[in-house]
Formats: sequence, C-alpha cells, structure tokens
Amino acid sequence: MINPFYGRDIISIRDFSKLDLEYLFRMSDKIQKLSHDELKGLAPGKLLGTLFFEPSTRTRLSFEAAMLSIGGGTVSIVEARTTSIEKGENLNDTVKTVESYVDIMVLRHHMEGAARFAAQITQKPVINGGSGIEEHPTQAMLDIYTLLKLRGRITNLKIAVIGDLKYGRTVYSLLYGLANFNPQIFLVSPPDLMVRDEALIDLEGKAKLSQHENIEEIIHDVDAIYVTRIQKERLPDPLEYEKVKGSYVIDNKLLSKGREDLMVLHPLPRATEIKSEVDKTPNAKYFIQAQYGKIVRAALISLMLNEQPPN
Amino acid sequence: MINPFYGRDIISIRDFSKLDLEYLFRMSDKIQKLSHDELKGLAPGKLLGTLFFEPSTRTRLSFEAAMLSIGGGTVSIVEARTTSIEKGENLNDTVKTVESYVDIMVLRHHMEGAARFAAQITQKPVINGGSGIEEHPTQAMLDIYTLLKLRGRITNLKIAVIGDLKYGRTVYSLLYGLANFNPQIFLVSPPDLMVRDEALIDLEGKAKLSQHENIEEIIHDVDAIYVTRIQKERLPDPLEYEKVKGSYVIDNKLLSKGREDLMVLHPLPRATEIKSEVDKTPNAKYFIQAQYGKIVRAALISLMLNEQPPN
Amino acid sequence: MINPFYGRDIISIRDFSKLDLEYLFRMSDKIQKLSHDELKGLAPGKLLGTLFFEPSTRTRLSFEAAMLSIGGGTVSIVEARTTSIEKGENLNDTVKTVESYVDIMVLRHHMEGAARFAAQITQKPVINGGSGIEEHPTQAMLDIYTLLKLRGRITNLKIAVIGDLKYGRTVYSLLYGLANFNPQIFLVSPPDLMVRDEALIDLEGKAKLSQHENIEEIIHDVDAIYVTRIQKERLPDPLEYEKVKGSYVIDNKLLSKGREDLMVLHPLPRATEIKSEVDKTPNAKYFIQAQYGKIVRAALISLMLNEQPPN
Repeated sequence: MINPFYGRDIISIRDFSKLDLEYLFRMSDKIQKLSHDELKGLAPGKLLGTLFFEPSTRTRLSFEAAMLSIGGGTVSIVEARTTSIEKGENLNDTVKTVESYVDIMVLRHHMEGAARFAAQITQKPVINGGSGIEEHPTQAMLDIYTLLKLRGRITNLKIAVIGDLKYGRTVYSLLYGLANFNPQIFLVSPPDLMVRDEALIDLEGKAKLSQHENIEEIIHDVDAIYVTRIQKERLPDPLEYEKVKGSYVIDNKLLSKGREDLMVLHPLPRATEIKSEVDKTPNAKYFIQAQYGKIVRAALISLMLNEQPPN
Repeated sequence: MINPFYGRDIISIRDFSKLDLEYLFRMSDKIQKLSHDELKGLAPGKLLGTLFFEPSTRTRLSFEAAMLSIGGGTVSIVEARTTSIEKGENLNDTVKTVESYVDIMVLRHHMEGAARFAAQITQKPVINGGSGIEEHPTQAMLDIYTLLKLRGRITNLKIAVIGDLKYGRTVYSLLYGLANFNPQIFLVSPPDLMVRDEALIDLEGKAKLSQHENIEEIIHDVDAIYVTRIQKERLPDPLEYEKVKGSYVIDNKLLSKGREDLMVLHPLPRATEIKSEVDKTPNAKYFIQAQYGKIVRAALISLMLNEQPPN
Repeated sequence: MINPFYGRDIISIRDFSKLDLEYLFRMSDKIQKLSHDELKGLAPGKLLGTLFFEPSTRTRLSFEAAMLSIGGGTVSIVEARTTSIEKGENLNDTVKTVESYVDIMVLRHHMEGAARFAAQITQKPVINGGSGIEEHPTQAMLDIYTLLKLRGRITNLKIAVIGDLKYGRTVYSLLYGLANFNPQIFLVSPPDLMVRDEALIDLEGKAKLSQHENIEEIIHDVDAIYVTRIQKERLPDPLEYEKVKGSYVIDNKLLSKGREDLMVLHPLPRATEIKSEVDKTPNAKYFIQAQYGKIVRAALISLMLNEQPPN
C-alpha cells in the first residue's frame, strides 16, 4: 500500500479512509519496536513548527515530544488570542514566514477554518492541532488507536460520548473517525449541548447513533465512555454553563453499573467531570491515552515526512 | 581571507566592511549546498541563547531554526518589558548568568545600546537581534543577500526605502550596509518620519541619497522598494500615528507604474502597508527574504563559531 | 559505590547523605573532562520536561542547557500561577500527562509539597526545582560544589548566610546540605526574617549555628558569605518589606573588612543586596556559581538516567 500520509495535510479526519487509519496504526505499532537509532533516523535534521494561537500545553508538548523522539527539532510560537481585525493578516504572514523555517507545521487556532487556510497558502504539510469548534484530527487518531490497543479491535464497538457535544471539537473528529469502523454510539449530553445536526446527517448510515440525556440509561451496555469537558469559553452564555456544569460527573458509583472492563477515556484536560477516585480504577484509561498520543503523532509525522517508512 | 566573524560580536552593520559582507554571502551560498551531515557538523553540541526582552516571534524563530539546522541547540528567554528601574540590573545579571550556559547569544531589547552593553560584559559572542531604534544588523545582512540573489548583483542598485524612516531600526542597518555597494537610495516618508540627520551626515559621500514624500515620484526608476511598518509604539504621539497610517500603501495599481522586475521587500511583520493582492505578484519578494533570513543567520553563526569554515 | 541517584526523585537535600553528595561532585568533576561525543552519550534520546508554575528563567535555562549538553532534549511548560481551586487538580493531570512524554521532570511550584506530590503520582523521576518556601535541593548541590571547587574543601568551613532566612527556600536546602560537612554557620538576618525554628532544631548537633543581626560582627571571620534576596512576595506585609529592604547590602567597603579570599555567593537573581561594584572584585563568585549550576545539574541528570555512569 502506498503511504497515504506522505506530504499530505492533516486537516480533517474525514480526509482519511479506514485503510489510511489502519496504515497509521500499523506504523504506530512499528515505532514502538524501533531502537533509539532507528527512531532518530525517521526525521533527522527536520524541523517541526508548533504554532499555537490558543493555549494548549498538552497538545503542544505531545507534538514536540513526538518530533524529538524521531530525531527532529522543534520551534514554537505560543501567542495570545489576537484581535479580530489583525488575525487574518497575521495568520497569513506568520504561516508564510514560518514555512521557510520548518519542514512541517502544527497549527492551533480559535477560528474555524484556520488550519485549512494555512494549508492552502503554504507548500509545507500542515497538521490541524485543533481549530475552533470544528476538528482535532490527531486527537481522534490517538483515541481510536487507544481503543484498538486496549480492546484488541476497533470494529463494532459500543461507545458513549458524553458531555459538551455541541462545541467540543474532539467529539466531531472522533465521530467521523469511528464511523469507519461500524460503531454503535450513544450521544449523551444536556439538551442545550446536543451534537450539531450536520454531524447527524453526515453520519447517517455509517454509525448507529442514539441520543440520551442520562448516562445511567446506557452505562451497562458500552465498551467505553468518552468524556469531554464542558468548556466555559465554548458556551455563549455563562448561565448556560452554570446550569450544565456537574450534570455529567463520572464517579466510582456510576462505574459500578458498567461492565467490568469498561474503558473511561478523556482527551484532557478535565475539569470536574471525572472524579479523582476513578484514577485508581482499572477502568481509567485517559493517561494511557495521552501516552498513545505521543506515539501516534510520532508515527504520523514520520509518515508525512518519509515516502517509504521503515518495514 | 581570514574569517572576519570568528568570535566577533555582531552589534552594528557598520562594524563590517564590504569584504566582510561578501565573505558572509559566500558562506550563505555554501551552506545551501551542504548535506545534512555536513550542516550538522557546523555547530555540534553548541548552544544558542535567545534573549528576547521585546517580543519578536519571527526573528526568534529564524535564529532558532538557523541554529538547529547546523546541529546546535537553543534555549530561550522571552520576557515582557521590565520596569525602568529594574532593567539595567536585570540585564547585567541575566547576561552574566546565561553566558555560562551557552556558546553564543542573541539579544533583543527595547533600549538603545542594550546589545553593545551585553557584548561588553560577556566573553561569549553577542548578536544584536534589534535594540531600540538603533540597529538590527542581521536583518540588513539578509536584506542585502536577498538583493544579491534576486538581482544577481548588489552594486549600483536603485532602492526606495519607504515608511517610518525615523524610528525604524531596520532602515538604519540597511542604509549603512548598502552604503558599501554604491547605491542610489530614495528615502520616502511623511515629513514627521524623515530619516534622522545623523544618518544623512554619516552616509554623505557613500550613497546617493534623496528625500521624497511621494512614492509615485520615484517608483518608475527603482530596482527595489523596501517597505517598513509604521510602528505605533515608536511614535511619541498617537495622533501622529493616525495622520500617517495608510499614507504609504503598496498595491497593484502602484506597482503597475514600476519596472516589471521591481522587487518589493519588507522586514515583516507588516500591518496594512502592503496590500495582500501584492502577495500574488512576481514582485512580492518578502517571503523569500524571510527564507534567506534563516540561511544568512545559519551562515553567520557558523562563521562566529568556526575559525575555519568548510570549503 | 552504587549510584545513589539512579531512578531516584530529588525532592529534598535531606534525602541524600554526605557520601551521596560527594559521589555527585565526583561525577561533576568527570563531566568536565568528557569530550563532546562522550557527553552526548549520557542521555541520548532522553527527554527532560521542565514544568514551571512559578517563573524562574535562570533555573529553567540551567536545566535545559544541562540536558542539551548531555545529548537529551527538552520540552517546557511555563504557566502563570493558577487559582487555588484549580491548582491541585491541574497539577495531578499535568504531571500524569507529561510523564508519558518525558523521561525525567523538573517541577517548580509556589506550593509547599508540590514536588513531593508529583513524585508520588508519577513513575518517572522528579527533580524539585523549588517548591514554596521549603527547598530547592539542586541549588544547594551547586552551592556546595562551588565551595568545594573554589576553596578546595567543604569540611569545617565558616559561612555566613545573610538576608531573608525565614522565607528563602534556598537557605534551607543549603543549611541541610552543609550540615554534612561540619560547618560553622552564622545566620544573619533582621529579627523579622530569622531562620525558622524547625531548622534550628533539625540542625542541632550537626552544625555550629549562631544568629546575628549585623554582618559586621562576623565578616572578618568567614570563608564565604551567602547572600539571599529579600523577596517581596515571600513577606506577608509590604511594610515589613520596606523596613528590611536595604538593611543588608554588600559593598566593597564591607568586603574590605573580610578576609582577602572571602567568597561572595548568591543564588541569583539579586535585587539590590549586592552592589554592582562588587562584581569586579575577586571575591564575587556568584556568576561562577551559576556556571557550576549547569555542570552539577548535567551530572545529576546523568546519574539519575544511567545506573552505570562513565568512569
């Protein structure tokens, strides 16, 4: 199979097929078996630029650690939110300037379409590190890889996705990615934060979807619950936030109603939606998930930079 | 010729002769022909400290990318403007501390004389990454190298320098650097932002200079226009800013009055002084200029660190 | 002797014996004799995460430079002080996330116990880079190494520790570290900033201690004075700060009353407690001390990562 990531932009998980994702997961497996010297040979002398116009320490560190692990270097921009007038211009000039310094870029931005815009104006491959409320494709890649490694398969899983399904961008990338693997998905959210209609339409016929307000209705039946933070800044009204905050809290009592091997996933950072008592249970998989993040991103960058990945 | 940059501080472009600059440009040519392994051999195990007391993401990234490309590493300080009482003391102690960590430093500071002060108190070579309204010597080096590569020669060029010629530090470094190559320079600015008298006196007999208020007077006759941002923070009075902002905007209509091969240069970042429509014209050279920035800086650091550069 | 640092957390200087410290100092000596290639072999492919929740540019750069010098890489979090509600939760999740990216962590935090907490929740070794008013163990290691290198021995030294002895964390690590080497220590501070009783009790029988208000009483008799900054933020009351600021200023006149080979040390950054005129005297050793900081930290990280250090 031809490497489907070589020289490509990674803007939306929807740009990649089931076969593409499986190809990435095989590379993620391989990378864990390589020696230090073999790893270093995957991106020697290559430079990753991380352009973060919205703070996200964990995502930035995950990409930087991934790049360093395969022998490359990194340079970083971490900038506060710019005013609306400046931002379009600045983004263009920043991307056009940074493209001459680096071999690959990760862009995080509070505006929808920012990553796609960046990809259009530069010759260098761009990874969407999260843009507006749209997508965060590498998060979905690592989420699905985590399911694969911990459950042994991806197909035909039953997964509850819980929390802010309206504004949470990781949710959309996850839903579109999972849709390749015939899942049954329980969408659990307060009425004000239900998944956007566009996704329901897009996913029709690709995934069994049902909507719920109450976790307890479905907890006994699922392989995994994927919990997301209800982000204050994504809600138009602070009162709306106060109303829903704390409606969906995962604790040990709730977990006792699920299967023994129920997996609890979370893209992190969490606020209060998973109690710390859960951390000590074998169900808590969110830190392992973070660990797979570095691996999947290292595999992805390797494939973007090397037409012929190692056998 | 003996390497004129070895162990030297790079404070002012005026400290370097025509021959010195040509030596640097030959190294910049060479560096582009080296293999990855040869490049890595130019600064193995060496460390660059970037000390930025005034924000400048692009300049910092350009230096960091340059250093990483030749096998070195970087550590960075990015600090907000300090209060006037602290700053003298802090700069001294910071430089004296960082000098024991690194092999070479780049300093950017809002105070005139900061880089020269740093160079005086440390044994390690210091590069002025922009200090106050004085100078930004590596910007001039890359500007002139860009002219050389894109026009094929540097001598006897006709260049218009446009915008804030009073407070823009890149302008001064450029004028002093170009003066080595017998240029004809058209200084175009609003009356309140005309070039400082000191430069006119210094450059007498070294460059043909004329002052203009209107770009259209001279656009038909020049090889290149070098556009600079009118920086609000450099103007003592906000009203003065409002008056001149937008007086000097480059657009396609204006370019149509120039030579077909007119080059438009800009140190970046721009505000609104070059319209985005210009980006698509073959005249737009400011992003190529940024690209040469990384190369010239990599060449410069290599020469500062290696008495005998590669053949 | 078995490497006492391999895989260990470095939380308090009190966790290490005299023999342990001497082992570290021998490694610090060795590291300075290694070739570039040998140094690079001490942490190849290893990653250091510097997690700074309290600003400290110098300490961060010292650790980063140390790690880069032995062939490793670094990723950094620099975050402003978080609100009291968030902080416990955030620290846990941040540490648990970053542990999957890196091989070793340095944590700096404004809360007492933060480093020990981090060490308890992660499998990766943690270095306390300063936590609250408690301890800063690597600072003490480099302080004592500096005394060793500059005086030729550590045992039986007479040392005055001056300034804020109540809130200054470096003081406590230094006192506990020195206690291994039979010192005579003169504690010089204003009455409001005298050393905390806990330390006096702990050190009884291990060090000859005496308390003083006036430097002049003891200056003639000591090998070294260790000066600390009176940090405004450590004092509960701004009026208390104004009262003591400037009470303990080291100048050349004072030094003339000391031994000719009196060493002046300071953990830096200083405010106004050492006059800049002192910098030019042979007594000023605080910048050499910073230099040893990089070396001791490189040695320490090497020992933490390599069970068998080089001979």
